[in-house]
Amino acid sequence: MEAFDLLIKGVLVAERGVKADIGIKEGKISKIEPDIEAEAKYTIRAEGRIALPSFANMHTHVPMSLLRGLGADLPLMDWLQKVIWPLEGEFVSPEFVKAGAELGILEMIRSGTTLFMDMYFFEEVVGEVAESAGIRAGLGFGILDFPTKVAKTPEEYLRKARDFAKGLKGHDLVFPVICPHAPYTCSPDTLRRAKELAEELGLYLHIHVAETKGEVERIKKEFGKTPVSHLESVSFLSEKVLCAHMVYLTEEEVEIVRERGVKVAHCPESNLKLASGIAPIPEYVRKGVHVCLGTDGSASNDNLDMLEETSTMAKLHKGATLDAKAIDARTALKIATENGFSAVGIKAGKVEEGYEADLILINPDSPHLQPLYDPIAQVVYSAKSSDIETVICKGRVLMEKREVKTMDEERILYEAKRWGERIGSFLK
Amino acid sequence: MEAFDLLIKGVLVAERGVKADIGIKEGKISKIEPDIEAEAKYTIRAEGRIALPSFANMHTHVPMSLLRGLGADLPLMDWLQKVIWPLEGEFVSPEFVKAGAELGILEMIRSGTTLFMDMYFFEEVVGEVAESAGIRAGLGFGILDFPTKVAKTPEEYLRKARDFAKGLKGHDLVFPVICPHAPYTCSPDTLRRAKELAEELGLYLHIHVAETKGEVERIKKEFGKTPVSHLESVSFLSEKVLCAHMVYLTEEEVEIVRERGVKVAHCPESNLKLASGIAPIPEYVRKGVHVCLGTDGSASNDNLDMLEETSTMAKLHKGATLDAKAIDARTALKIATENGFSAVGIKAGKVEEGYEADLILINPDSPHLQPLYDPIAQVVYSAKSSDIETVICKGRVLMEKREVKTMDEERILYEAKRWGERIGSFLK
Repeated sequence: MEAFDLLIKGVLVAERGVKADIGIKEGKISKIEPDIEAEAKYTIRAEGRIALPSFANMHTHVPMSLLRGLGADLPLMDWLQKVIWPLEGEFVSPEFVKAGAELGILEMIRSGTTLFMDMYFFEEVVGEVAESAGIRAGLGFGILDFPTKVAKTPEEYLRKARDFAKGLKGHDLVFPVICPHAPYTCSPDTLRRAKELAEELGLYLHIHVAETKGEVERIKKEFGKTPVSHLESVSFLSEKVLCAHMVYLTEEEVEIVRERGVKVAHCPESNLKLASGIAPIPEYVRKGVHVCLGTDGSASNDNLDMLEETSTMAKLHKGATLDAKAIDARTALKIATENGFSAVGIKAGKVEEGYEADLILINPDSPHLQPLYDPIAQVVYSAKSSDIETVICKGRVLMEKREVKTMDEERILYEAKRWGERIGSFLK
Repeated sequence: MEAFDLLIKGVLVAERGVKADIGIKEGKISKIEPDIEAEAKYTIRAEGRIALPSFANMHTHVPMSLLRGLGADLPLMDWLQKVIWPLEGEFVSPEFVKAGAELGILEMIRSGTTLFMDMYFFEEVVGEVAESAGIRAGLGFGILDFPTKVAKTPEEYLRKARDFAKGLKGHDLVFPVICPHAPYTCSPDTLRRAKELAEELGLYLHIHVAETKGEVERIKKEFGKTPVSHLESVSFLSEKVLCAHMVYLTEEEVEIVRERGVKVAHCPESNLKLASGIAPIPEYVRKGVHVCLGTDGSASNDNLDMLEETSTMAKLHKGATLDAKAIDARTALKIATENGFSAVGIKAGKVEEGYEADLILINPDSPHLQPLYDPIAQVVYSAKSSDIETVICKGRVLMEKREVKTMDEERILYEAKRWGERIGSFLK
């Protein structure tokens, strides 16, 4: 008789619209059929629950969870220069990053995310926390032309990026990414060398691009080009580049992005909250650009809730374009799941045989989810992360019945509060 | 010694930024002070919790909860004509309205709402459910020029509205409202007579206005005026008129609305999902228009979650106007609470002595709410309705520790599912 590592019994597989059992083996979904008769090391009875792929949060700064909501109601540049950078200068350390990563990863597991792409300082610490919590993560520290706690010169940043990448080799869930911060904080030379390093090591690149009108003006003034054209002119763009935000692109730039196979990480709530604008995502999707979704950091969102982000995205673009089909529920779900995983070469984001076993189980027995006519549409438009009962990453159960099994929630909350007190006193 | 009906101990009163006790007597907040020593019929220990005003959902169609999410990804007119109206023709009855009202009111209590303004059929049934659940409600059935299950002619609608209003007299929490449906479904004569009836009986009016560009075109074609100007020309507008949506107003119309003291019920998520557009709320607020907030019905939102609606509103308008201060967190909270209650003459929506005891207690001990720097901003930008532990309406505890005390949750969910099965079979 067949044997599974994990067997989920009697769940509604939303994408198929049928009730079935899901057999998981060696981290993959190996069988979806009604009434599977088989041995299993662990069984989850999921009658009445809905199985959906877990989320891929494709742009965040997870340690910033400790700065949650600070500088609310400020635009991006004021928020960065007057609030965030001074606080980071004072507080960021490996201990800060550990406590922030624990808090943020705990929040992400509780809201159904099993992959996140992170850019911050001391990412080796984020990697340890992610690996131990059992969540996938693509990690890199921001490479800049000016000095920070990480390094003083572009050369030093790049050398450290090479060391960081080698240090993460052989990890199971966590992989290194090269992260030049943005076209307005990296010279063409830094961009080129970051690209070369990524190619040499076979890594993805992750960068902020065209987030605000101010950035576009600045790049135009400095280089005579808009940001994506500027990146193209220094041969930066490829299918291994993940560009966060991409709010302001010319028609020609959309074509460049599509041709090069660049991945766009849309961050609608951060772009709204920082008054950056509304990225024309329906246009990108229509033209065949690879769009995925991210929350950005908790200081500008103010949470890491991908279900909320998906719902906001689906509604926002209908209203902004006056087209009720601009992003439908199924497209929204795909952007938030499969498109994220596949952007970094992971075959996950569908509850289908042969895919990685990254999935969530939702309990629809709440007044805001009944009656349940179309599970996918109702999850996108009406569910809350508190409806997510179970989270599985690569076949491992990270949360069951809302209890996170791989992290010490009480200690993490306690430490987050202590950091909050220290930072709060500094702010007074 | 002083005696209270209800005493809340050791709660963080968010608007004051201090920890205190709240003494409630005869439905009102009678004292807010640290360490109140007094008798109380009931005491809630709320150490570590945050007290905020409860929400006023100023535009909804609560029985439509049974049609949750149907017709997703369709624009307003297709959604109404192809999906909603045929279903309503088939199913709407007093039994449907009872089950839908129970489901929706249960959802609203669970998400911190203690007042809702409703427009549907068989509102006397909604009134019974609301009164028994202990929630405030301003109720009226839609008055139209065409026949429905309620009536055949405008005369009959108006006669029934008068009877309905008299029937609700003497109720404690529930009050009648006159609800001409919209300028495109009511003739000038019907609008005038509805207004006269409301004045005669001393009631508020509740109407849909300027929801879509299509409506504006239609009214222009028929009456040579845009919707608000048309309403002004038939002397409809006053400080007792609540206009839902108000997405498309001319500058002159904004001035009329301000001068007349008309109340605007903004429904951002419904306007987004039905691709109606984005109402220029920051402009209304800046010009002194009285703006409150509503969810609209669950078929177009797809939930009745006012906390989500508040968060969406606060973020949306920053992004849409490229102004990070467009609607700040405190303004958003005021629009969602005090501005709603005061629009219909209820002194609630602030946790202050002398105000009605309509409030919620939030548990911030979750990874998405820590560290907690600014409770009001973090509730607006990061909290979820599942963080709302306790809901109090006019001094009565409707929910405590997430258990609704005034409704039978299990039976209501069971019946909602049965209705879902019947409606689902019809749709196949």
